[in-house]
Parts: sequence; structure tokens; C-alpha cells
Amino acid sequence: MAAAREGDPRAVARLITLVESGDELLPDVAAALAPHTGKAQVIGLTGSPGVGKSTTTNEFVRALRAEGHRVGVLAVDPSSPFTGGAILGDRVRMQDHATDPGVYIRSMSSRGHLGGLAAATPQAVRVLEGAGCDIVLVETVGVGQAEVEVASLADTTLVLLAPGMGDAIQAVKAGILEIADVFVVNKADRDGADATYHDIQGMIGLGERAPGEWRPQVVRAVASRGQGIDDILTAVQKHRAWLVEHGELRRRREKRAAAEVEAIALGTLRERLGSIRSGTALRDAAVKVAAGETDPYAAAASLLASLA
Amino acid sequence: MAAAREGDPRAVARLITLVESGDELLPDVAAALAPHTGKAQVIGLTGSPGVGKSTTTNEFVRALRAEGHRVGVLAVDPSSPFTGGAILGDRVRMQDHATDPGVYIRSMSSRGHLGGLAAATPQAVRVLEGAGCDIVLVETVGVGQAEVEVASLADTTLVLLAPGMGDAIQAVKAGILEIADVFVVNKADRDGADATYHDIQGMIGLGERAPGEWRPQVVRAVASRGQGIDDILTAVQKHRAWLVEHGELRRRREKRAAAEVEAIALGTLRERLGSIRSGTALRDAAVKVAAGETDPYAAAASLLASLA
Repeated sequence: MAAAREGDPRAVARLITLVESGDELLPDVAAALAPHTGKAQVIGLTGSPGVGKSTTTNEFVRALRAEGHRVGVLAVDPSSPFTGGAILGDRVRMQDHATDPGVYIRSMSSRGHLGGLAAATPQAVRVLEGAGCDIVLVETVGVGQAEVEVASLADTTLVLLAPGMGDAIQAVKAGILEIADVFVVNKADRDGADATYHDIQGMIGLGERAPGEWRPQVVRAVASRGQGIDDILTAVQKHRAWLVEHGELRRRREKRAAAEVEAIALGTLRERLGSIRSGTALRDAAVKVAAGETDPYAAAASLLASLA
Repeated sequence: MAAAREGDPRAVARLITLVESGDELLPDVAAALAPHTGKAQVIGLTGSPGVGKSTTTNEFVRALRAEGHRVGVLAVDPSSPFTGGAILGDRVRMQDHATDPGVYIRSMSSRGHLGGLAAATPQAVRVLEGAGCDIVLVETVGVGQAEVEVASLADTTLVLLAPGMGDAIQAVKAGILEIADVFVVNKADRDGADATYHDIQGMIGLGERAPGEWRPQVVRAVASRGQGIDDILTAVQKHRAWLVEHGELRRRREKRAAAEVEAIALGTLRERLGSIRSGTALRDAAVKVAAGETDPYAAAASLLASLA
């Protein structure tokens, strides 16, 4: 814990593994981290496979480092059944930043975590924040429910698209327009990039907005050549300023914290429910009730108390 | 409470109303009743509308009274949205037994009760038992999930059928063969009664039974003329003897008590869950978590504790 606070990469990795696995020490770790959290900027980054998320993340991290930020990256794969199985992936991802002590890159899955990814991811963010990161990128694949949940935990969400993949249409279908603060049309040097750009701009134009409401930005990039990365950074900073100015940053963070607390509480209740059905306590209580030794309300109450 | 124990009909009625409405005094009432319960014979009686349930119940109660039993009747209507709205029904039902102090007849619905009918009905049975009834009839309409649940709370379940209503086929579809200990083919003087009788016998014959397992009895009756009521009584007594002999009575009662305790416990958990989502406690907790004043696990734990 102390080592992780001092930025020891292996200590940070161990803590995130603990978060993923839903270890019983988790509440203690969370309590110790709490005073050091709540300040980092959390940026979500999502998009279908093949749009260039890893490359964009890589270049974006480079730009953030150039500005002096300490950066954490969480690559969340809800479908992966392997806890810690992303170690090879981490090494591959880390090749550009492997020797940089100011960058932590970590893949994670949610196996075993009480409350799933919705609860695990913000805890992992806190670990990285506790280790000194002032910016945490959360990268998710695709636009499923899990990704939308994770994206909703970010201060700013980037949605990556690429030309000619039908992403623009899919984006609308999946309701991604509602979660995107910044669209990035990556591979902007390819055929169809302009069409994708204008499709997205057109859809954004159709949406009704209250005065002062954020209008999603659209940025063109060719991440593989480092082009457009500064524009992404500018758009993110602009959104950050808007969040602060409109009190939206606090509102989003409180909403995020509420979702997190709720996910943990519901997970706990679900666990208790399972114990009631599977345990022997119910049977023991039933024998007493049937014999008239106790009443069912008292039995239910002591059953619940014993599970608390 | 004391008045109900002495058999004051109005005191009994008030206690059952309290059970139906899920009054907060319920746990206290249940605790006071517990020592006086667990001895009454509980008989379930179900069937589609029009098969003659009320008439059969009426005649069956007469036969039980003739043997010196004190009898309680609970007419359960899961679909009724009216709590206590069955008062008129009670008066109509009671016409034959209205002046008999050895019979309580009561309709009930489950509105507002934590855990629904599955929890309310056995409590009402306990009230009647506490008032001195040694036999309690629980009459339900139809063969829906709620009726099956209620039937599963009885020591012995009677299923009423009538000829020419397609009941025999429906019975199988609804899986009623599994809950019936005794079938009554009522209106046995009508066309098709023999066919219905043999249909049911045929279906019972198809079922595989372990040695010593109960084989459902089939009885013919014309309740409106009082015919066959003694045969019903004989079949019920035979089943009772089988239950005792095979230790099945205790097993059923413990299973019933377990279902009851579980329904109350789950109802309590469900209520807590609702409070978490609707209350201000979650919002307050979220503000503290977002500010780093507490961690989400501690917040979730105190949220759950405050709801206990």
C-alpha cells in the first residue's frame, strides 16, 4: 500500500489485481486510498475493434506526458474471462512507454468482483490516482452495456470511429451519441473519412440542446502518424473547462460515486440472498418455526442479521 | 390478542386484517402466536371458477363440525385488489355457519404484505389456530402460480374438477397433478363425469411412484346435495395418516416454514433495495465519496446498516 503510494509499479499492479478479484481486503484498501482520491481527470475512450484505439491511446499518452502529466491507462475488456490474463497484452501495449516511470498501463477484467465492472473500474482508477496519476484513461471495447456503464464513469468520453466501417450508423443505433463528449474520426487519410466526419456532424446537429449544453466536438486524426493528437487534447481540455464552469464535473462525479456505492450495496444484498437460499441457516430456522419455538418474522430477522 | 385467543370473532377478524395489510405490529403478533401453533391440520382446496368450491367447502365444514372440529376457512383471492373487500363475500359464504361459534370464515387478499400471499396466508392460518381452530381450510381460485404456492403450504391439497369443463386436460397442463393429494370430481351427476373421473385416474396411473409414495385419491361428489362429502373426509383422513406414518407431515411443515421465512427475508431485502434507490441516503453517501471523505465500500456498508 505504502509502496503503491510511492509509485512502485509492482505494488500498483498487485493492488489492481486485488481490485479485479474482489479480494476481501478491498474495503480496507479503498478506505486507505480515499483521502488521496477525487482529483484525477478520468477520460473514457471507446470504439469498435479496428478503429485504432491502442494506437490512439499510445499517441495520446505521449502528448499528455509531454505536458508533464502522470498517466494511468486501464484497458477494460468485459468479455475477457481471464483475470490478470492481460499481462502479455500489457507488455505489448507498454512497448512505447515501458521505461517511462510516469505511465502505468493495465488491462483488467471483472471476474469475481462484487458489483462487476461498474464497481471494479472506479476502484482501479483510485489505485492509479493513489499512485500519483493525475490523468487516468479508461479504454473499453465496443459499445455494449458494460462499455456504456464504464464510459458513464468518465469525466470526458472519447468515441473513436474509422471511415467505411458503418460505425456512424451503428453509433446512433447504440445510443453512443448520448455518451460521447468528443468524437475522433481516426484514419482520416482514408477514403470515406470526410463522409464519416460529416455524418457525425450532421447527427450532432440534429440533437436538441439547452443553452449552455455541451455540443460534442468532432476531431480528425491519423493516430498511426501522430496527426490530430493535439486536436484531441485541445477538445478534451475544452470539455474539461466546460465541465468545471457549469458545475458538471462535480455532478458527474457524484453520479459516478452513487452508481459505485449502489453497485456495491446491491452486490452485497445479492450475495446475502444467495446465502439464504444455499445455506443451512434457513433449514434450521424452519425446523424451529415448524415446532412453534419461534415465529417466522423473528427467524427471518435473525437470518438477515447473521448474514450482515 | 387475548380476546382472539379466547375466540372472539371480531378480535380474530382484526388480527387477520392486520396480517393482510402487513401492519408493523405483525412481528409482535407472530411472536405471541408462535407457542400456540403448529398443531392444526391445514387443508388446501383449489379449482377453476364454476367447479363448486364454495358449495363443497360449505358441506365439508358441516361434516367437520359434525365430528367436533373447530374449523377456520381462509378464502384467498390473489387477484383481488381489495383488502377487506371480501366482507360481503364473507357474509354470503357464512350464511350456513353464521351462527356457529365453532367456525371462522374469512376472505383475504395480499395487498401490502411483505412477501405476498406466500407469507400472509400461513400467518392468517396461525391466527385461526391461535383462536382454537384445529382444522384450517385454505380455499384458492384457479391454478396460477400464487395458488400453487398457497397449496404448497397445506398438509393436504384437494383439487376440485367438474365434468365437461376441459379441466382434466388443463389440470395436467398446469402441473396440478403434482400438487393434488385428493381429486374431487364434483357435479358427478352430470354428463361427462365418468369421463373426467377416468381421465384423472388414467393420468394418475401414468405417473411413476416410489414404493410407499402417496397415490392421489379420486372422489366423486355432488356437493350441492351433500353427496360424497364423507368420501372426501375419508380420503383426507387417509392422507393425513399417510403423512404422519411417513414423517411427511413434519417434512412438509418444515418446508412450509422455510418458504415462509424465506419470503419474509426476501421481502425485507427487496424493501431495502427499494429504499436505497429511492432515498436520499445514496445521494448523501455519493457526495462524501466524490469528495474523498469516505470510500464506496464504507458508504455501501453504512447504507445497508442504516436500512437494517
